[in-house]
Amino acid sequence: MRLRNVKNKEQILNTSSYFIVNPYLYKGNWHKLFKNTNPLFIEIGMGKGKFIIENALKHPEINFIGIEKYDSVIAKALPKIPANLPNLFIIRLDALEIDKVFSNEIDRIYLNFSDPWPKNRHSLRRLSSKVFLEKYDTIFHNKKVIYMRTDNKDLYIYSLLSLSEHGYTFKKITFDLHQDQNDLITTEYEDKFSSNGLPIYALIAELDS
Amino acid sequence: MRLRNVKNKEQILNTSSYFIVNPYLYKGNWHKLFKNTNPLFIEIGMGKGKFIIENALKHPEINFIGIEKYDSVIAKALPKIPANLPNLFIIRLDALEIDKVFSNEIDRIYLNFSDPWPKNRHSLRRLSSKVFLEKYDTIFHNKKVIYMRTDNKDLYIYSLLSLSEHGYTFKKITFDLHQDQNDLITTEYEDKFSSNGLPIYALIAELDS
Repeated sequence: MRLRNVKNKEQILNTSSYFIVNPYLYKGNWHKLFKNTNPLFIEIGMGKGKFIIENALKHPEINFIGIEKYDSVIAKALPKIPANLPNLFIIRLDALEIDKVFSNEIDRIYLNFSDPWPKNRHSLRRLSSKVFLEKYDTIFHNKKVIYMRTDNKDLYIYSLLSLSEHGYTFKKITFDLHQDQNDLITTEYEDKFSSNGLPIYALIAELDS
Repeated sequence: MRLRNVKNKEQILNTSSYFIVNPYLYKGNWHKLFKNTNPLFIEIGMGKGKFIIENALKHPEINFIGIEKYDSVIAKALPKIPANLPNLFIIRLDALEIDKVFSNEIDRIYLNFSDPWPKNRHSLRRLSSKVFLEKYDTIFHNKKVIYMRTDNKDLYIYSLLSLSEHGYTFKKITFDLHQDQNDLITTEYEDKFSSNGLPIYALIAELDS
């Protein structure tokens, strides 16, 4: 995503009740922040937040945490969240730190349009690489469930191979998500991409603990 | 494949040294027919035989058996086999009978451009359905290895899901085999299809015993 600096981004973050300044404090105890034991879904790389905000509104029975690396992007997402949405928090985090912030408490991970890192020598930076799958192993609660969407064919094939190698079983595979399914909650990026008629690859992968 | 009747097909089959009239006799003992213990690769649905004949010529260290359901098709394949090719035999068989003809002796199965059986109610007739994967379990020697190619996207996705569900891990996935790989041994069907510029989907799936 192209990063534009956002004026007052620090003020936006520090004054939002949805932004958790120190997420490391809640490791293993996120349910206490939500004050319930509902399932916890996270989106790694939430961008401007459309997908996770709409999901939180639609599914009050699920807790959501949006994860994003950059303050500037988070500062664009926070103002979009309606007041009094009790099942959503946003954190700033490099995905490499994911296992320092969660422990045995996640029920589903969404990976939407992650950076494809097209060069082979960067393959371990892909969010579906072995490096990250091993971290995810420690943060899932029970069954491991990953929902992935991408417009990048190479990242998609890499992810199918990597997830398979790690023991995941595929529950859904589509090479044209928007052709196959209506009523989707989409990301900002996806809307632009898909309106050009280009296909979105998607998968659901599961691994029993 | 469109079936044309071949005159003298019975004569062609009965006089070819490559055609095994009663394959059931060799169950568990095919290595005796080949007079060695080399690995045994089979192609289920060999059609007119180009793929398996060229493989047998290129890989004398491997034993090959081509399997086809229809006499008329086999009668077209047999005359193409050069004389004195010791590592190839052809059998006539409905794939549903595969576990009555082989037992713990196959090292690799090729499924090339299998019938997609597009209607959902026929899905169990697909050669990558659970029905067949369970039969294959009994005929593999050690590690289970399936090489599949198809031009049919729906059959390909169905196969990814079905193989994954059965415990297979993917070692290779490509949505455009001919773009990704040169020096391929192809089938007759594939040559026609690919020369029109249409992509071939392919996979290699493995499952340790």
